[in-house]
Amino acid sequence: MDIMVIHGPNLNLLGQRKTEIYGNQGLDYINKEILEYGERNGLKIEIHQRNSEGEIIDLLHRAGREFHGVVLNPGAYTHYSHAIGDAVEAINIPVVEVHISNIYSREEFRRKSVVAPYATGQITGFGPFSYILAIEGLRNIGGGKKYGKD
Amino acid sequence: MDIMVIHGPNLNLLGQRKTEIYGNQGLDYINKEILEYGERNGLKIEIHQRNSEGEIIDLLHRAGREFHGVVLNPGAYTHYSHAIGDAVEAINIPVVEVHISNIYSREEFRRKSVVAPYATGQITGFGPFSYILAIEGLRNIGGGKKYGKD
Amino acid sequence: MDIMVIHGPNLNLLGQRKTEIYGNQGLDYINKEILEYGERNGLKIEIHQRNSEGEIIDLLHRAGREFHGVVLNPGAYTHYSHAIGDAVEAINIPVVEVHISNIYSREEFRRKSVVAPYATGQITGFGPFSYILAIEGLRNIGGGKKYGKD
Amino acid sequence: MDIMVIHGPNLNLLGQRKTEIYGNQGLDYINKEILEYGERNGLKIEIHQRNSEGEIIDLLHRAGREFHGVVLNPGAYTHYSHAIGDAVEAINIPVVEVHISNIYSREEFRRKSVVAPYATGQITGFGPFSYILAIEGLRNIGGGKKYGKD
Amino acid sequence: MDIMVIHGPNLNLLGQRKTEIYGNQGLDYINKEILEYGERNGLKIEIHQRNSEGEIIDLLHRAGREFHGVVLNPGAYTHYSHAIGDAVEAINIPVVEVHISNIYSREEFRRKSVVAPYATGQITGFGPFSYILAIEGLRNIGGGKKYGKD
Amino acid sequence: MDIMVIHGPNLNLLGQRKTEIYGNQGLDYINKEILEYGERNGLKIEIHQRNSEGEIIDLLHRAGREFHGVVLNPGAYTHYSHAIGDAVEAINIPVVEVHISNIYSREEFRRKSVVAPYATGQITGFGPFSYILAIEGLRNIGGGKKYGKD
Amino acid sequence: MDIMVIHGPNLNLLGQRKTEIYGNQGLDYINKEILEYGERNGLKIEIHQRNSEGEIIDLLHRAGREFHGVVLNPGAYTHYSHAIGDAVEAINIPVVEVHISNIYSREEFRRKSVVAPYATGQITGFGPFSYILAIEGLRNIGGGKKYGKD
Amino acid sequence: MDIMVIHGPNLNLLGQRKTEIYGNQGLDYINKEILEYGERNGLKIEIHQRNSEGEIIDLLHRAGREFHGVVLNPGAYTHYSHAIGDAVEAINIPVVEVHISNIYSREEFRRKSVVAPYATGQITGFGPFSYILAIEGLRNIGGGKKYGKD
Amino acid sequence: MDIMVIHGPNLNLLGQRKTEIYGNQGLDYINKEILEYGERNGLKIEIHQRNSEGEIIDLLHRAGREFHGVVLNPGAYTHYSHAIGDAVEAINIPVVEVHISNIYSREEFRRKSVVAPYATGQITGFGPFSYILAIEGLRNIGGGKKYGKD
Amino acid sequence: MDIMVIHGPNLNLLGQRKTEIYGNQGLDYINKEILEYGERNGLKIEIHQRNSEGEIIDLLHRAGREFHGVVLNPGAYTHYSHAIGDAVEAINIPVVEVHISNIYSREEFRRKSVVAPYATGQITGFGPFSYILAIEGLRNIGGGKKYGKD
Amino acid sequence: MDIMVIHGPNLNLLGQRKTEIYGNQGLDYINKEILEYGERNGLKIEIHQRNSEGEIIDLLHRAGREFHGVVLNPGAYTHYSHAIGDAVEAINIPVVEVHISNIYSREEFRRKSVVAPYATGQITGFGPFSYILAIEGLRNIGGGKKYGKD
Amino acid sequence: MDIMVIHGPNLNLLGQRKTEIYGNQGLDYINKEILEYGERNGLKIEIHQRNSEGEIIDLLHRAGREFHGVVLNPGAYTHYSHAIGDAVEAINIPVVEVHISNIYSREEFRRKSVVAPYATGQITGFGPFSYILAIEGLRNIGGGKKYGKD
Repeated sequence: MDIMVIHGPNLNLLGQRKTEIYGNQGLDYINKEILEYGERNGLKIEIHQRNSEGEIIDLLHRAGREFHGVVLNPGAYTHYSHAIGDAVEAINIPVVEVHISNIYSREEFRRKSVVAPYATGQITGFGPFSYILAIEGLRNIGGGKKYGKD
Repeated sequence: MDIMVIHGPNLNLLGQRKTEIYGNQGLDYINKEILEYGERNGLKIEIHQRNSEGEIIDLLHRAGREFHGVVLNPGAYTHYSHAIGDAVEAINIPVVEVHISNIYSREEFRRKSVVAPYATGQITGFGPFSYILAIEGLRNIGGGKKYGKD
Repeated sequence: MDIMVIHGPNLNLLGQRKTEIYGNQGLDYINKEILEYGERNGLKIEIHQRNSEGEIIDLLHRAGREFHGVVLNPGAYTHYSHAIGDAVEAINIPVVEVHISNIYSREEFRRKSVVAPYATGQITGFGPFSYILAIEGLRNIGGGKKYGKD
Repeated sequence: MDIMVIHGPNLNLLGQRKTEIYGNQGLDYINKEILEYGERNGLKIEIHQRNSEGEIIDLLHRAGREFHGVVLNPGAYTHYSHAIGDAVEAINIPVVEVHISNIYSREEFRRKSVVAPYATGQITGFGPFSYILAIEGLRNIGGGKKYGKD
Repeated sequence: MDIMVIHGPNLNLLGQRKTEIYGNQGLDYINKEILEYGERNGLKIEIHQRNSEGEIIDLLHRAGREFHGVVLNPGAYTHYSHAIGDAVEAINIPVVEVHISNIYSREEFRRKSVVAPYATGQITGFGPFSYILAIEGLRNIGGGKKYGKD
Repeated sequence: MDIMVIHGPNLNLLGQRKTEIYGNQGLDYINKEILEYGERNGLKIEIHQRNSEGEIIDLLHRAGREFHGVVLNPGAYTHYSHAIGDAVEAINIPVVEVHISNIYSREEFRRKSVVAPYATGQITGFGPFSYILAIEGLRNIGGGKKYGKD
Repeated sequence: MDIMVIHGPNLNLLGQRKTEIYGNQGLDYINKEILEYGERNGLKIEIHQRNSEGEIIDLLHRAGREFHGVVLNPGAYTHYSHAIGDAVEAINIPVVEVHISNIYSREEFRRKSVVAPYATGQITGFGPFSYILAIEGLRNIGGGKKYGKD
Repeated sequence: MDIMVIHGPNLNLLGQRKTEIYGNQGLDYINKEILEYGERNGLKIEIHQRNSEGEIIDLLHRAGREFHGVVLNPGAYTHYSHAIGDAVEAINIPVVEVHISNIYSREEFRRKSVVAPYATGQITGFGPFSYILAIEGLRNIGGGKKYGKD
Repeated sequence: MDIMVIHGPNLNLLGQRKTEIYGNQGLDYINKEILEYGERNGLKIEIHQRNSEGEIIDLLHRAGREFHGVVLNPGAYTHYSHAIGDAVEAINIPVVEVHISNIYSREEFRRKSVVAPYATGQITGFGPFSYILAIEGLRNIGGGKKYGKD
Repeated sequence: MDIMVIHGPNLNLLGQRKTEIYGNQGLDYINKEILEYGERNGLKIEIHQRNSEGEIIDLLHRAGREFHGVVLNPGAYTHYSHAIGDAVEAINIPVVEVHISNIYSREEFRRKSVVAPYATGQITGFGPFSYILAIEGLRNIGGGKKYGKD
Repeated sequence: MDIMVIHGPNLNLLGQRKTEIYGNQGLDYINKEILEYGERNGLKIEIHQRNSEGEIIDLLHRAGREFHGVVLNPGAYTHYSHAIGDAVEAINIPVVEVHISNIYSREEFRRKSVVAPYATGQITGFGPFSYILAIEGLRNIGGGKKYGKD
Repeated sequence: MDIMVIHGPNLNLLGQRKTEIYGNQGLDYINKEILEYGERNGLKIEIHQRNSEGEIIDLLHRAGREFHGVVLNPGAYTHYSHAIGDAVEAINIPVVEVHISNIYSREEFRRKSVVAPYATGQITGFGPFSYILAIEGLRNIGGGKKYGKD
């Protein structure tokens, strides 16, 4: 199973800021954990971090052609990028939205995702382990079916 | 690690209704899968289903005293039961909110959780496998820390 | 045809309070009229009054297994109990929502029903006769089709 | 007892459109059923269909002078015609608002009636039988009292 | 000076309903007072009552061609008829919106006028004398200027 | 008949600013016209201008004890001073709210009056003549009755 | 191909008012252009202007029986006439909503159409040429399919 | 006349997804039709597709310097990109907003355009033919005037 | 005087959680203080804690029959339980709503009580002493009159 | 213990207006009761009534320097005076907000206090006895701690 | 250049409260810095602090007659005093709104200024130095032009 | 001190459009003034203009590593780019948000900044001089403290 992991805007600064919310592990460390998990489980995993909305859309399009699933942390784009939402809807593979922190216990604007209605599922609040859970979720889904998404 | 799983209102009818959303596995089948997963991983798991808000609060209080973590699917209470939200906040163990379907692609009122701000994290959209992911999340957290919850 | 009639919270006080709105007939008198109507028309009618949301859900579940239709006055739960709404949607028999008073000419919060979208129909404002109309409506529907409910 | 039945805008197309919501009975058929019901029960019933808001108001005014009650399906005017609401309030006879479909399970704008606060009661979701139930409700009310309408 | 007075929907029932709000003078009596006032002051006054929105628009168009000013009581159309608002804006003569009752101390929906932004001014709450004040206001304006209307 | 006229905040600058909205007559000129009108009609008129909310309340209280009616232009306090609204409600004499400009064709916030629900009536848009119309309205009311104010 | 063109309320005053928005061509001139376009392209075009909501509904019903398509400028009814919206939905021919001005750069209330969800498409902002574009659009659609209308 | 056509985000996937809404013609086919139309009518047409908001702004700026008009389908940016709205406003050539589907009959968020207030006009719902209509609209406008845009 | 004190959901955990808000006194300690106060003042006081909405309604009904007044801390039910609000309205004895913390300086949702409109009064922010103040308030009221409750 | 009692706007008219809400005791009588209560309990109490927002702020500032606590009835300022709210927050002594009537069962705007978030607590609905309860509350608090105020 | 500096309500307590937000410099110290800055730069500066809305309006009126510019910190009046907004608009000199703290990172209600639309500009978040920046801004503007204020 | 100045989308067109709002100085002229100011005051200033949200985020990240402060005019991104807001929050140097025009006196959507809560301060309305004031503000802050930002 081939999985693309996409980190959205500002996640490159992980571990350097707001460590009380995001933890103090840098993105490199997290990516290493994700790749090791992939290796242990025979998954091909490709990881990208982008600050640009357009480039995230480009990556999603490519994933739709070349991968079996996507783990997407849209960062702040979660809350207003209908264009990313459309891209998630447009491609024919499962996309899991993840968040490191519990976005429902932060500022009001972070409590609404315009991407989630088009995703397969959402995992939020488990720190870097959210990514691992998302990959496990993708593996369980397989090519497969979605729940409660019309 | 001892984990209580709580199914909220109407989940006893699972597999008999809206199977296009919830899948066609009955609650018994799901519970069996959860228990087997627990056994395989050396976890003590106790499962309850309640239609009554007050009884769910009672269960959460007991879990706070006797368990290490809770997997809670609050069903429709998710969207208005501040009392369950308070109970989740009140107990000193991690609580993971799960949903079988992707609540963000259904009716408008289902897109807001009044419980999530007080939970450790939320997992939604993976069908019955949402419960397994939640338990894995609890195991990873351990007694442990929370992300983005003040 | 077997019909369950469910009176929601505070309806046990009927006839003792706000008689300018609800009339001065007690619940016993109303139930007697309903039962007599049932007898005259060869219907088996079972009547319950519950203040607990969870018990109303339990009754709806049982009705779904054992009755042909339900007349439900959800009282104040009408306006926020998505869990009762889900139970109405979950069972495979017609449910008619009734109100003794015209809920649309009272406080603002009473003008919205979260149950009605999942009911077969709604009858409001005819005093205790609302229940009789609802039963007639159920008889007309039979096992049958619904209008404008997707 | 003399009763005026008023069908609002677009109801003349009944049976030709959206039959999954409104059923496939034409207005003529429904009117025939209503008139037969009237004859069987010794009621004088007069039926009108109007697309014009002003003409519906005129009919309500005349009904207030010459009839004992009105069954009114305001169609889409239900949702914004405060002028029809005022006419319902102005006349001294009971007016029952009816809808063929369950307006609470359709588009958001259809879930609010600006007429209902001034009506005696509302019946919605029983297909053409909604009219018959409304007439029975009027007969029960007689000249009489209203519930929960100030 | 030639002035058209337009009474909107349901005002033909004046004096017969809600006399605690509108007073108990019928429309004939009020019209007689208006006409006598006109005669005493050398004004040609033409009075119309219409329940139909379209006919009120027609009258406004004619007034724009043949009169020097309009006194308009739009009744319930006040609160939603943007078409009447457009007609008021379209004609090149001053239009004064009047209300018999104080619309700001009644139901919430009556507190907003979609016509007033396009009128010269608004007079509300003086009973039938509101019409006389409006005519005096028109006489003072003459052909003339408007305050605070862009 | 003794009438107090109260000009609210910033009306002392009348004629010096926004003359396209308020006209170019200064407050002195307007007051002179009001007083002359009073003399011609045998009315005792006392005029005040205040920028302070508290002093306007004091004046209303005194008017309630010593005058037969008040003409009040609350200026910008119209839109948020519930304290002035309470004072208007508290005194037992008719109070007419006036505005020089048509407040309904200006900024959104000016379209709502928190004072009007407690006033006898409102006159808006007639330039300085709004005050004269208000006094005429008070004379017509006499000690008298109010329309549509509960 | 037979096309009905319906001009809504106040459009009879075109060219006489707000020429900075609507241009200074009268309705006669525009109608002449439309008819000439029709002749050049072998289309039978029938044009109506109505101020009455009910008559517009009547015309739409007739068009549904006798024409292949409708070009509808609902004027101010665009923003609140759900009854016209229902009529557009009810008839089985394509209806194109047109506006002479760009309604999205005017008052807030003009930015929402309650008719558009039921129309085939909407064309706004091209002056009288909007009508010609709408007819071309109808010709392209033919009897045919609709995009993004469920 | 030189016209730039800009396709916004995700439109490169046209024909591969949601064909019940967008039709099954790929972007290449549509572009070919647009170019052929241009050739037949002696127009120089340049077509671009971009997923990046910033690049769309860049293209609009260049069009403002080198073209006579723009046909812009902003895709999902329609609903939140005030930056694209500003770019449309900033350049001194007419810009027509187009949509393939009828955006007013889809999700709520798609019913509001933050670009339209600054465009010359909007065309929505005609499938790929929307582009052709937009170009015809631009040709009719010429360098020219706009309706209802301040 | 016989007074029932009802502690709502989660108050059984008092003193164990969020002590910076609720103080560190357990419910037992508080109840002891209340009972001692009752004894000192010759009041019969009965205290209950319930997590279930339905049981709180049952208790209120019993209090209405057997007690002279109620001190009710509805916990989180304060903010959505219209059913408890109805129960408070239904019984013919004074009910005082109390809160240990100042609910107006916490989360937004806690700032609205759906119970208070039907209570005699509300006391909030005095810690456990809120209960004592409420009892004193009940003693002062006696059987008696209410202020500002219609 | 030295306590300042501040009566806000229009409270000087107490006993003369709306006696069905506020009771018929004048402010003098209430003040006498407060002072007698103070004397009986060895408290120095100073009482002020002000209609001016600025003077209430001045009094609060002085109280902060010279008193141990404040009982504040902000009257209508309760609902919009953020400046009084800031003053309450600024001074380092406990302030109790009191209301004679139950503000939660009156007009909508009275149900929100912008002062309460900064007060120690709020007491509402006990008539003049609200003041006595507030003083008792202050005595209990002493210099002391606050509950649920951050 | 003559400049009036106006400190609004509660700013006299600066340095004594919420020092984590406002810093610990008292108003005297800040005023001394402002005056010294004025002296160094040859500006006549007059400083006032007022808690009363009416007195702030009076000062603005005087400044309009006697000064070249105003630096105004409206304190909490910022958020609701349309009367101060009107005064700012009424006078013919530039007014700069300043805030010591960053009002956009505090309570929700502090994020909206009803004064700013009528001011020349706004400076917020620089501590006491906000005043110095405002004066520099006034010096740069001179008598001069405003940007983006219609 | 090293300062980065970032001009957001469309600011490259400055001086060519809407000169009544933005003035007629081009960006080159403004940049020259900023650089000269920097030279005069011994500051190293680097200036960038970007239309792309992602590139603005990249620049902010680089500034966080290499500069002492940022002056940021986010253009239209101000109103919806939570991703830029996050970037401002993420870097450990002061960021001042500036606007050339007074955004509070323009369209409604421009009155809300989603960036400001995370900035040190905001300066708006001083034309190009806003940038100079922002740099002065940064110099005053130094590495330093922030007011009212948590």
